[in-house]
Amino acid sequence: MGHAHTTSARSVEDHAVRIDEMITRVWSARPPETVPLTDALGRVTHADIEALIDVPNFRNSQMDGYAVDAESVADVPVTLPVTGVLAAGDAGDERHRSGTARKIMTGAPVPEGADAVIPVEDTEVDGDGVRILGSRRSGEYVREQGSDIAAGSVVVPAGTTLGPRHLGALTAVGRSDVTVRPRLRVAVIATGAELVEAGSALGPGQLYDSNGLTLASSVVADGAVVTFRGRSTDTADEFSAMLSEAAENADVIITSGGVSMGDFEVVRDVLGPRGGTFTHVAMQPGGPQGWTDLDGTPVISFPGNPVSTLVSYLVFARPAIRRLSGLPDAGTTERIADETVRSLPGRRQFLRGRLTETGVVVSSGPGSHLVVSMAAADVLVDVPADTVEVPAGNSVRVWPL
Amino acid sequence: MGHAHTTSARSVEDHAVRIDEMITRVWSARPPETVPLTDALGRVTHADIEALIDVPNFRNSQMDGYAVDAESVADVPVTLPVTGVLAAGDAGDERHRSGTARKIMTGAPVPEGADAVIPVEDTEVDGDGVRILGSRRSGEYVREQGSDIAAGSVVVPAGTTLGPRHLGALTAVGRSDVTVRPRLRVAVIATGAELVEAGSALGPGQLYDSNGLTLASSVVADGAVVTFRGRSTDTADEFSAMLSEAAENADVIITSGGVSMGDFEVVRDVLGPRGGTFTHVAMQPGGPQGWTDLDGTPVISFPGNPVSTLVSYLVFARPAIRRLSGLPDAGTTERIADETVRSLPGRRQFLRGRLTETGVVVSSGPGSHLVVSMAAADVLVDVPADTVEVPAGNSVRVWPL
Repeated sequence: MGHAHTTSARSVEDHAVRIDEMITRVWSARPPETVPLTDALGRVTHADIEALIDVPNFRNSQMDGYAVDAESVADVPVTLPVTGVLAAGDAGDERHRSGTARKIMTGAPVPEGADAVIPVEDTEVDGDGVRILGSRRSGEYVREQGSDIAAGSVVVPAGTTLGPRHLGALTAVGRSDVTVRPRLRVAVIATGAELVEAGSALGPGQLYDSNGLTLASSVVADGAVVTFRGRSTDTADEFSAMLSEAAENADVIITSGGVSMGDFEVVRDVLGPRGGTFTHVAMQPGGPQGWTDLDGTPVISFPGNPVSTLVSYLVFARPAIRRLSGLPDAGTTERIADETVRSLPGRRQFLRGRLTETGVVVSSGPGSHLVVSMAAADVLVDVPADTVEVPAGNSVRVWPL
Repeated sequence: MGHAHTTSARSVEDHAVRIDEMITRVWSARPPETVPLTDALGRVTHADIEALIDVPNFRNSQMDGYAVDAESVADVPVTLPVTGVLAAGDAGDERHRSGTARKIMTGAPVPEGADAVIPVEDTEVDGDGVRILGSRRSGEYVREQGSDIAAGSVVVPAGTTLGPRHLGALTAVGRSDVTVRPRLRVAVIATGAELVEAGSALGPGQLYDSNGLTLASSVVADGAVVTFRGRSTDTADEFSAMLSEAAENADVIITSGGVSMGDFEVVRDVLGPRGGTFTHVAMQPGGPQGWTDLDGTPVISFPGNPVSTLVSYLVFARPAIRRLSGLPDAGTTERIADETVRSLPGRRQFLRGRLTETGVVVSSGPGSHLVVSMAAADVLVDVPADTVEVPAGNSVRVWPL
């Protein structure tokens, strides 16, 4: 009697590796995409990106002031005739004559023959001329062409997750689009005859499909794209048709429900005969798990209880999805258990917890239907399979939600 | 001579408080918005959200097994007649008769009169009946109506940044939309006669407008919305018209360029006479700064050199924008300087730096035009105004990019 499946169950680690491999393999076969820089925030560069032009593209002034040749201002104070004004945006093709000054604005081209800029604060207007109060060496306050980067040099290396500063730099070097790694396309199908759409009328025995939105928004939060979202009853034909539709535009299909020991397990019933593996992983919640290679599209099947579904996603799918999206791993940390944590033997337990100033407390029991309690938690407390008690004051591993 | 402005300059802290207050005030006047849950990821709840229904909404089975009354299975093993099957989604309105069992699936309604579920693993088929091998107490494996939450109770408190688990919980309690805090609407206007659009042909004296995209993508990364993006020459009429257009749909306008000491400072020239304040903040880069209350719309004016623009955004705008968006503060941390950090006296310096395994190194000089070098940095190294040298091995404050 009882729980015979737990002794032959797969370990969490083995199952996590299997799911990670399936997701990574199908994503790796996708070609890179070229997108406008305006759509590239958070995308990951496919290859090194080189500058198309020198930056700056022309020698220009770093200050508002006067362009001079340094020799003419070696002895100060000295008054020089002013031959004109150069504003940012001017072409600046007139050559500088030694012994003169040209008023110049920040960013304006420094005329050929001039080699320094005297900041306006170090000058005084003197009739039609300018009195230079401080001398400057050759090159001072002049930004040389290519001094930030030369055309052909790498601006952003391959594998960079593009933030605002990278987008600015790519614009500056002449780029208007960028080739990036593909984003994982995920289809989400929630199954269960009892499920109805959010906010609709609720009949006897029915409940709202929360898993669909939980999974879809998790996928989005982790940087991938949801290309299909469906809700299927426990009818094999309906679920089969939905799988086919989902597979058209998705790299990976995630299902919830229909994988355990009941008489009406549509996911297991449909995918088992198509090569699916349905097994029990030594964890709670989230024991019943399945995976299928559906004509090249991985189908990852989680149990349907809301907490089981979310814990399964966090443990098995999130690490790969975040990595492929160029997001940092959500990571786990060690916290001090403020109160004794109790667990069941033989399975790795993921308990809902709340962080405190000093550590963490478990905030609800092991029930896998407590979708509302899950919302009040901010971490999962991870208790190893062989541990039945973590005394207060000892440390436990926690996963961020 | 020289730098007289630095002695009368505002402190970074004073200017940061002023800008934060302007942004916060205008945002606070905005009404909350009601959005579908499917669009609510990352939004912040305006008020406490209560459950519209009990969850679960009906008493149901936590396991695949047999619904019984506990008295009938007090002494095991015992064989009971099976009176039918209840699947998830069934209405379940037939009353349980003591001394019988009903096959029941996880999530199916437990019939009135039954008070426990025997898991299928603890049973054997016995002819037309079921042999019960393990006894269960009243209530075991039965999820009572409202055991997760009762209608009217708070599911998600006000001020919660909605993650996947909250969206799932709100769906489960009968919600399909949610009232959330408004998102700050930001207009971005880059000014400068020398600026041209990304990827277009570059004439003499021209450069690509990188500030527009840097600012706009920063605003998006920090959770606000860009409602307008413009690029203006140094013509007052053009800039004035663009301000009016931007103000129509924006809470805040951010400008870059046109605020310093030159002859063609369009932002200062247009906004100064309309009540704008243009001043010098004791920092480098980013000294020249401005702010204007433009008929109720705050205009925050940053200098135009790309590094100055981004540093100004990070120091003055990002903290408020992230807070109002419900995102965690980007935060600053202390790191060990791996090499001696040198700085100029009299101004707070923000140097570009790179994190190392042990601490941080400064990765480029103080130049404010080095947009490409900025992309290669991952932090700003913050050196106080009165510090000219931080010896290697001492700690410095760093801001994440």
